Amino acid sequence: MSEKSNARESIVSTAARLFFSQGYHATGLNQIIKESSTPKGSLYHYFPQGKEELAHECIQKANEQILQTFEKTFAAHDNTGDAIQRFIHDLAHETEAAGFTGFLPFSFWAAVETSCISQQLRIACQGVFADWQNVIKKHLILDGVGEEKARETALLIISLMEGALIISLTNQDKQPLLTAAEYLSVVTKNAKQIQ
Amino acid sequence: MSEKSNARESIVSTAARLFFSQGYHATGLNQIIKESSTPKGSLYHYFPQGKEELAHECIQKANEQILQTFEKTFAAHDNTGDAIQRFIHDLAHETEAAGFTGFLPFSFWAAVETSCISQQLRIACQGVFADWQNVIKKHLILDGVGEEKARETALLIISLMEGALIISLTNQDKQPLLTAAEYLSVVTKNAKQIQ
Repeated sequence: MSEKSNARESIVSTAARLFFSQGYHATGLNQIIKESSTPKGSLYHYFPQGKEELAHECIQKANEQILQTFEKTFAAHDNTGDAIQRFIHDLAHETEAAGFTGFLPFSFWAAVETSCISQQLRIACQGVFADWQNVIKKHLILDGVGEEKARETALLIISLMEGALIISLTNQDKQPLLTAAEYLSVVTKNAKQIQ
Repeated sequence: MSEKSNARESIVSTAARLFFSQGYHATGLNQIIKESSTPKGSLYHYFPQGKEELAHECIQKANEQILQTFEKTFAAHDNTGDAIQRFIHDLAHETEAAGFTGFLPFSFWAAVETSCISQQLRIACQGVFADWQNVIKKHLILDGVGEEKARETALLIISLMEGALIISLTNQDKQPLLTAAEYLSVVTKNAKQIQ
């Protein structure tokens, strides 16, 4: 890997860690430059539009990782209910391991913090939620759930997952995520029967 | 009402509007002073510890309003399922009426934005979620639901409500909240049967 692409990756990973742990507004470009140990010119070279463009890249990168994790988890289970339960269990354990305050690539609450400020970032986060909903919907349909029921169930899954994450982070307790995981496993398995 | 308490109330209501719409970090004390049309000394007089103390007061005030709305909604319905559905419907319509970006007293996503920064505000938000869970649990028990099932169902209700609110705000679409409302109405009514 060239030194140049190293600098770009270092900027993006540092920015993602800071944005997702301390928030968009609390993170300044100078802190990103300092903590990524890259020359000042690099950030402006790779992200000429500055903080908003960099945050957009962080959201896309985090989303790619999450979609890969979703697909890996779905591939390891023979039904969507078990896969969702495993996905949220893993999320709960990672959240706890990170001390509920550290780096959480899943914390798309950034969506809301930035949505009042930046239309570009709001739309990027909307795309993230749509991607998650689509990947879950696709697997529900493969399980034999009808299109409309699959769409609605996928929306409930991402809503409850996000809400339980927020309450787990606030309470510094993984129980809300674990309760959501058990519950969504049952809901997902029942989706086929009650459409 | 004295001029003094008017100044205090003006500071708190202005701060709440700004914190909950543009975020904690993006809101400076100078903006609060300017938009509340109060003398600079007033803010420091009433809130000598500054921004964090003021935010704490805003969280408590918003919570009082929400708890009143919960109780009013419960009083107007003869079962918890219908009351929860009405509460979330009202929230969806208010959110839409505010253009999805305006003042939202319900948006305790502030909880997470601030939880990494301020232990005091994190604990205040944890108290808010506990209050909501308790008021819902109390009404589920009045409906005849067992203690443990009531606790778990109330946790699911607040988790799904928060998550659906986040996705509605991000997508600028009330549908995620409406879907959650329909769903939670059924879940709540079934809680008595399947414990």
